Amino acid sequence: MKIAIIGLGLIGGSLAKAIKKNTDDMVCGIDISSTTRAAALAEEAVDTIIEPAQLCTCDISIVALHPNETIEYILEHKNDFKPGSIVIDCCGVKQAIVEAVETALDECGVRFLGCHPMAGREFSGFAYSLDNLFEKASFIMTPTDNTKMSAVKEISSFAYKIGFAKCVVSSPTEHDEIIALTSQLAHVVSSSYIKSPTVEKKSGFSAGSFKDMTRVAYLNADMWTTLFLMNSRALTAELDCIIKNLSDYRRCIAEGDAETLHRLLEEGAELKEKSNRT
Amino acid sequence: MKIAIIGLGLIGGSLAKAIKKNTDDMVCGIDISSTTRAAALAEEAVDTIIEPAQLCTCDISIVALHPNETIEYILEHKNDFKPGSIVIDCCGVKQAIVEAVETALDECGVRFLGCHPMAGREFSGFAYSLDNLFEKASFIMTPTDNTKMSAVKEISSFAYKIGFAKCVVSSPTEHDEIIALTSQLAHVVSSSYIKSPTVEKKSGFSAGSFKDMTRVAYLNADMWTTLFLMNSRALTAELDCIIKNLSDYRRCIAEGDAETLHRLLEEGAELKEKSNRT
Repeated sequence: MKIAIIGLGLIGGSLAKAIKKNTDDMVCGIDISSTTRAAALAEEAVDTIIEPAQLCTCDISIVALHPNETIEYILEHKNDFKPGSIVIDCCGVKQAIVEAVETALDECGVRFLGCHPMAGREFSGFAYSLDNLFEKASFIMTPTDNTKMSAVKEISSFAYKIGFAKCVVSSPTEHDEIIALTSQLAHVVSSSYIKSPTVEKKSGFSAGSFKDMTRVAYLNADMWTTLFLMNSRALTAELDCIIKNLSDYRRCIAEGDAETLHRLLEEGAELKEKSNRT
Repeated sequence: MKIAIIGLGLIGGSLAKAIKKNTDDMVCGIDISSTTRAAALAEEAVDTIIEPAQLCTCDISIVALHPNETIEYILEHKNDFKPGSIVIDCCGVKQAIVEAVETALDECGVRFLGCHPMAGREFSGFAYSLDNLFEKASFIMTPTDNTKMSAVKEISSFAYKIGFAKCVVSSPTEHDEIIALTSQLAHVVSSSYIKSPTVEKKSGFSAGSFKDMTRVAYLNADMWTTLFLMNSRALTAELDCIIKNLSDYRRCIAEGDAETLHRLLEEGAELKEKSNRT
């Protein structure tokens, strides 16, 4: 197979390396930066660099750009993809992407499937890409009523082949609701946590829990601003939920209400135990 | 040297194992549970089990109990410790402990030093204790104007000998302020995070950031209720701070204010980068 990867950053670069490591497929790279193109060739993450006009020779096109760029690129190049081929994206939000590109690609005879490879690092760019980034990771697909089942079948077998641990299917809306909790809220909390003025005094006091809480505060502000705003309804609901829970704890602690505080902590520990089992 | 450890749970058990691994000192254990006493003997974490009356033969007594029990035990047994010997505690709050026991021990001619070995696990009890729990960890000491410098000197060399990476000195108040951020707030946030109703849907969607955010939600509610209430002023201040920051993000996300959102995220990323350097 011939596979195009548009955008050779952390995700695109890691996908390219995982394909080269695990398959005999030919990887064709597209990237706006000449340094990145050269690095991808030098590290043999791609077999060749192509122009958009050559997308018509590829069986699968993976768009690994930031959300707004993903939509722009797909719409601008909808006629460049090979009819009958599959186009997937890699964005961390799905409803906005799927709604923006699905119909346009369908009209060009191209099979589109919204995808989200569930892995990342707190760094971005090709330099940080890894051929094993997706080991143990889930590959989420968000088909709609208009999605060709053949695309789901071909892409899931492709995902397993390049090393993903698990393929998961979800609707775009459900994906966005869950991701608001499991990924986006973590980034907002981490970014809020690091802003305590006490951080400056902490040298020597930093245990594992502080490191865990603030790890993802080092983030790409451009990308996360877009992701948050594209999923504002679900993320706002999660923020309301955690602010309410934190306020309950705050009240108990300020008022010395040991009984309620103990119950709230017990409930949290039980939910954590239950969550570990699923 | 002869070292008593009162309470052979996660911390006391790990200290016993670290002493046996790294020194020739004799470890004398005290624990309320016969199962724990037997397990500590069987794993050779202690050389012998003693009665409180035999504390008068020990050069250092390490009280590794929960905060309220620590205060009760020290006050009840203040006449059992050998005059001239050193007593330390291991609690995660310091001002309340130091204020409660310092004078009483001083009047008995016993040198007290408030201590906090900065390590832990989300599990408790001797069964989870490890001889290397304190590798890479800081050993915090909180002397006051009344503390004998000889105790600081002897305990810090003891801490290095058994494997701590770094000894840090702080005042009890400063300790409690910093720990409110680096440890206590992490537990409140984690416990609040796990309570989103969306948690039930998350199977297959859980990336590293969700795991990091909820790791310490599995906690001992008895101990943490006490720790939080003994440090309510500092912890309430940290909660106010993070609730305010989260509310700022919430406003930007709900209103679609991309410019402010981007700035807030950038500030967080810069603070994280700066925090990594110190």
